[in-house]
Amino acid sequence: MSDDAKPVPFYQHHVFFCLNQRPPGDRVCCADSGAQAAQEHAKRRIKTLGLAGEGKVRINKAGCLERCEQGPALVIYPEGVWYTYVDNEDIDEIIDVHIVGGKIVERLKI
Amino acid sequence: MSDDAKPVPFYQHHVFFCLNQRPPGDRVCCADSGAQAAQEHAKRRIKTLGLAGEGKVRINKAGCLERCEQGPALVIYPEGVWYTYVDNEDIDEIIDVHIVGGKIVERLKI
Repeated sequence: MSDDAKPVPFYQHHVFFCLNQRPPGDRVCCADSGAQAAQEHAKRRIKTLGLAGEGKVRINKAGCLERCEQGPALVIYPEGVWYTYVDNEDIDEIIDVHIVGGKIVERLKI
Repeated sequence: MSDDAKPVPFYQHHVFFCLNQRPPGDRVCCADSGAQAAQEHAKRRIKTLGLAGEGKVRINKAGCLERCEQGPALVIYPEGVWYTYVDNEDIDEIIDVHIVGGKIVERLKI
């Protein structure tokens, strides 16, 4: 499909946080690195900024995105940019620079 | 970002099924329309077709995608095409026509 044929996206930025929890002793998992708290923080912040909803931004929970060893992981579509993060400051930087500012946060990209 | 600047996507087609379960008496939810079985069917079929994995296709679980009344809902990125479905035959049609064939399944689009 060419760009001309593409409809307006339902969400301008659709963010999926991997929240997968694995059993102890299994591969690393995003849930063990604070993924749920990070997703909740992002959801609150997007709402506070007035960016939540159709035609704007959606912060979503997701199952395993299969990038466990590079996580905790999130992906932003339709642009298909993947990030990792350590804390809420990283999440805020992804929101401020990528979602609001339209630029890639190179240091957090995976 | 122009198309020229876009990297090769980690997944060629990244499919997210809403599996959200709401309490009885709440809004309709995808979980009440067989979303989990449909997601598992899609995952098995993509694996059987040899299409699962990096650079190919990922079938993912997701929380509420906020299109409850039009669901059960799934979205395929990076193309950002949304579908509903009734049964495994609909899922197979989405796999055969969209994922394998590269064409939109207009009758299931939401």
